Amino acid sequence: MPQDPFAWTVTALETRRAAGLLRTVLPRAATCGLLDLAGNDYLGLTRHPEVTSAAAEAAMRWGAGASGSRLVTGSTALHARLEAELAEFCGFEAALVLSSGYAANLAAVTALTAHDGLIVSDAYNHASLIDGCRLSRAPTAVAAHADPESVAKALDGHRGTGPALAVTDSVFSVDGDAAPLTALAGVCRGAGAGLLVDDAHGLGVAGEGGRGAVHAAGLAGTPGTVATVTLSKSLGSQGGAVLGPAPVIAHLVNTARTFIFDTGLAPAAVGGALAALRLLRREPERAGHVRAAATALYERLRAAGLEATRPDAAVVSVRAPSPEAAVRWAADCRAAGVRVGCFRPPSVPDGISRLRLTARGDLTVNALAKAAGTVIATAPAAR
Amino acid sequence: MPQDPFAWTVTALETRRAAGLLRTVLPRAATCGLLDLAGNDYLGLTRHPEVTSAAAEAAMRWGAGASGSRLVTGSTALHARLEAELAEFCGFEAALVLSSGYAANLAAVTALTAHDGLIVSDAYNHASLIDGCRLSRAPTAVAAHADPESVAKALDGHRGTGPALAVTDSVFSVDGDAAPLTALAGVCRGAGAGLLVDDAHGLGVAGEGGRGAVHAAGLAGTPGTVATVTLSKSLGSQGGAVLGPAPVIAHLVNTARTFIFDTGLAPAAVGGALAALRLLRREPERAGHVRAAATALYERLRAAGLEATRPDAAVVSVRAPSPEAAVRWAADCRAAGVRVGCFRPPSVPDGISRLRLTARGDLTVNALAKAAGTVIATAPAAR
Ligand SMILES: Cc1ncc(COP(=O)(O)O)c(C=O)c1O
Ligand SMILES: Cc1ncc(COP(=O)(O)O)c(C=O)c1O
Repeated sequence: MPQDPFAWTVTALETRRAAGLLRTVLPRAATCGLLDLAGNDYLGLTRHPEVTSAAAEAAMRWGAGASGSRLVTGSTALHARLEAELAEFCGFEAALVLSSGYAANLAAVTALTAHDGLIVSDAYNHASLIDGCRLSRAPTAVAAHADPESVAKALDGHRGTGPALAVTDSVFSVDGDAAPLTALAGVCRGAGAGLLVDDAHGLGVAGEGGRGAVHAAGLAGTPGTVATVTLSKSLGSQGGAVLGPAPVIAHLVNTARTFIFDTGLAPAAVGGALAALRLLRREPERAGHVRAAATALYERLRAAGLEATRPDAAVVSVRAPSPEAAVRWAADCRAAGVRVGCFRPPSVPDGISRLRLTARGDLTVNALAKAAGTVIATAPAAR
Repeated sequence: MPQDPFAWTVTALETRRAAGLLRTVLPRAATCGLLDLAGNDYLGLTRHPEVTSAAAEAAMRWGAGASGSRLVTGSTALHARLEAELAEFCGFEAALVLSSGYAANLAAVTALTAHDGLIVSDAYNHASLIDGCRLSRAPTAVAAHADPESVAKALDGHRGTGPALAVTDSVFSVDGDAAPLTALAGVCRGAGAGLLVDDAHGLGVAGEGGRGAVHAAGLAGTPGTVATVTLSKSLGSQGGAVLGPAPVIAHLVNTARTFIFDTGLAPAAVGGALAALRLLRREPERAGHVRAAATALYERLRAAGLEATRPDAAVVSVRAPSPEAAVRWAADCRAAGVRVGCFRPPSVPDGISRLRLTARGDLTVNALAKAAGTVIATAPAAR
């Protein structure tokens, strides 16, 4: 009998299980009764009737899929509408919608760099930015986390003739801390480098009316700044976008492989994101509600002695003593009716396991109290 | 004034325009009146009322987005349902749904290879497989197109201790020709290597009732075979999936970055694809209709002396003398009411520009005649 070429995956799974690091998929029901502090639906719009109806209408009117690459049959007038309104809202000249935030980051990093250039990437950047660096032909220097001086030093060492690009999350996905965007932009300006900011966790939460962390830093629409966003968090849908000067966007249309060789975003996702964006424009106070909820959550956890991070947007993380303890803690919260995120290696940049709590703008005072109370009551130290 | 770090994109666009290779996005209206031979909606299901209603209902019931990673809040019972039915239909033990076919290919290639392994990749593979190879840590050997001997030779040279994986499209996206799957599987078996087949253009078209080219080759469910599919072509929706033995799928859940760090596929896309799959199961003759339409189209074009490729599935490509001629040809077809794809460098593996025509199962005899007649009448040689 010939040997099984994938037998090694069985061994790999057993090793993972023995280390307490095995992950499994747990499908949820449509209504599960849990208080959700694990998702990224920061504005509570994923199930907002305006957003779901718009998604449904778009599917009925435009079809269940885009039917081809955005360059062939996959661009509808709805895509164009979303791109125009997203660019305007975030303060950029142009926008390009892709099938995910992941694809948007791969597109932006690979299209805006070259083999004779340089990328300087924050050590805690999201996996999609890191994969963008790996796919790019440019040499990549990893800068210390949230450290403009480290970026300056790396850019100083650039000896190539190609473009230099500093790449950072605006709000880091695991701990919810903000990047020092103003200082980074200053460093880039001094070095003639571009700045690419992934505003996935900033859009809808940070800045005036949720226009994002890039807008809040006064960088939106400046010649040296390109941003990416996702439509899957605050906008409650799916997809991603790159925002920047019109020639940068046109360059992506012509060269970004995850744009050219990928089917366009499904109309339902486009319609849902567009409705969420319009809702946020109409009710700009939603962004402030998220930030207030995150701060309130943080303060309660700190007051109880937990090692929580001060939130710069919607994400609050709480350290756990070990991966096993984190898993148990999350399970205890769940048993008490609260769903929290549990991040363990290799999904954490520093090897430290934690719970990841996300505030939502539509959480009531009672829900917040229940969430904080549950996390505190089930904390490993409190056993 | 500080220099604009993205000024080079303006120059790059000008160079591209001068070479006749500038691409622009042309949004379409909901109903545009053109006869479409450019999209990948092979079964004509994207706008089928059963499929669009299912997409709409899923958005209303489950939300416009999945709200998080599949490992956190992004797995719904609907995702699980689609995975089970897709695996069963294609003949595999398990399936994993991702946000796009592109993401599925990145996931499969990176998760099933290692730095001490080897990838052998067909020279004409899709961009997403190539990017998977680039993201993987494994050395990659490029094999001659559709050439099992070339694959055998490369596998023979494998000196590492890690897994070897041969990677191929089942039906190549540009020319529509089929990979020699049976021979490739034999070569892989002999070398103890795994075989990863991207069945994006096979699902819904090739094999009994559209079960795909991997099923048709008798490879579905064999221990050495993993397949990827997209939900965005025959299934008329968006998303992708990896199909394989259960431990392989579990290994992807634990290690594939485009699965772990990406928001789950939007419920509307899941619901749409599931409805399309059920429709295809109920009406298996749809697959044969596509193949018959493609063959009829090919025969007409050949009879008129055009250099068309014999279709192994739904795609027929026709050579053009130059990129400019291809663009003009496609524009002339469009002016005559027929939308065709136009592929130019760098979207073609061999540098040759061509029109890309896709047959659909729901094309009438009259529509087929009109399509073929238009392509023939507007051909550069016939001017
Ligand atoms: C910082 C950051 N960037 C990008 C992404 C990817 O976006 P998407 O899930 O829409 O692909 C995520 C999370 O999913 C993220 O946290
Ligand atoms: C062969 C092949 N694989 C994968 C893909 C990517 O699939 P998706 O568009 O669903 O991301 C495509 C086309 O888009 C393709 O032609």
